[in-house]
Amino acid sequence: MLDEKKVKQIVAEVLKQVDLQDRIKPGTIPVGVSGRHIHLSQEDLDLLFGPGYQLKVMKDLSQPGQFAAEECVMLIGKKGIIEKCRILGPVRKATQIEISVTDSYTLGVPAVVRDSGDTKGTPGLVVVGPKGAINLKEGVIVAARHIHMHSKDAEKFGLKDMDRISVKTSGPKALIFCNVLVRVSDQFALDFHIDMDEANAGNIKTGDRVELIA
Amino acid sequence: MLDEKKVKQIVAEVLKQVDLQDRIKPGTIPVGVSGRHIHLSQEDLDLLFGPGYQLKVMKDLSQPGQFAAEECVMLIGKKGIIEKCRILGPVRKATQIEISVTDSYTLGVPAVVRDSGDTKGTPGLVVVGPKGAINLKEGVIVAARHIHMHSKDAEKFGLKDMDRISVKTSGPKALIFCNVLVRVSDQFALDFHIDMDEANAGNIKTGDRVELIA
Repeated sequence: MLDEKKVKQIVAEVLKQVDLQDRIKPGTIPVGVSGRHIHLSQEDLDLLFGPGYQLKVMKDLSQPGQFAAEECVMLIGKKGIIEKCRILGPVRKATQIEISVTDSYTLGVPAVVRDSGDTKGTPGLVVVGPKGAINLKEGVIVAARHIHMHSKDAEKFGLKDMDRISVKTSGPKALIFCNVLVRVSDQFALDFHIDMDEANAGNIKTGDRVELIA
Repeated sequence: MLDEKKVKQIVAEVLKQVDLQDRIKPGTIPVGVSGRHIHLSQEDLDLLFGPGYQLKVMKDLSQPGQFAAEECVMLIGKKGIIEKCRILGPVRKATQIEISVTDSYTLGVPAVVRDSGDTKGTPGLVVVGPKGAINLKEGVIVAARHIHMHSKDAEKFGLKDMDRISVKTSGPKALIFCNVLVRVSDQFALDFHIDMDEANAGNIKTGDRVELIA
């Protein structure tokens, strides 16, 4: 027969063994490290590269239809300049610049962490191209970590669009990334997107695998 | 009637819902962000700055007796140069260079994560000072995250020298740092030491507070 003392002992014992391991979902997720980049509206592309300009595809990205363009722009902030910021295509409705916290110090803009598309009230920057410059009023974000997943992956992991989960890396510089946004679509391929600071803090690279903690 | 097996099952179920919050120890720890730096032996200091050279104190560090010197050196790797690497004093038995993973890419040296002092088999670099240069054969490390704590802090947290614990930051870029080495001494002040990549990945600065998960 169990008395209260015995039950408490058992509970304490089990608690000692509790590890995050118990909450890790089977299956791993590939890492995609994003360097700083800019998404441009056609209007801003015209101002920077000339009217009716079309981006040239340098390399297809992991997400279907998305590509790194051959073209780059220069970013000018109060404290410094970043000479090369890669343009990602295709063009979007609104211009958005995604930088790391390190870049925010270089440029002298606040590091405002936002989900992609949520740019209201974010800082701006001067952007310079070969045919002109724009004084972007807002749209500079440190993109929140996120996982793209196909609906089938979401089903497998028991997750839905806009969930926030945690992700664990391994090795001597192992990290758990908290507040990871889940984006689900039939157009997405499974990929955990982090910036260069996050990749280097965990000593991980594109193609490494991470575990999902839900 | 409850038997032991049934109790364990119930406990395991409840545990699935247990959050990390429950394992956080009371009391927070201040963050100290370390930029890249070099500790020099007197022999190497002599070679770089001239015989019998004495470092000048620029700023005292959080650990008693340790200081950032006015002097810097240049680091030369296979792929690149870092013009300014701060010297920390006082001189030590062996020269050791502590860089970030980002620096390892800039310089073209492998990023080898080690505890301070454990430099056997680590990469080398060419180090240049105003009076000479040294071709350091080994001693370049990415320092493992660590917490310095006074014996009284260790007692409070229920920890001992060489324990490995986890540390949690807060905010939208919240991270849990795993494998954090605990160093205990009556000569130490409480401080969680991370490098610039780790600070920027979590958007934290020197003086911010983190929580300890044991």
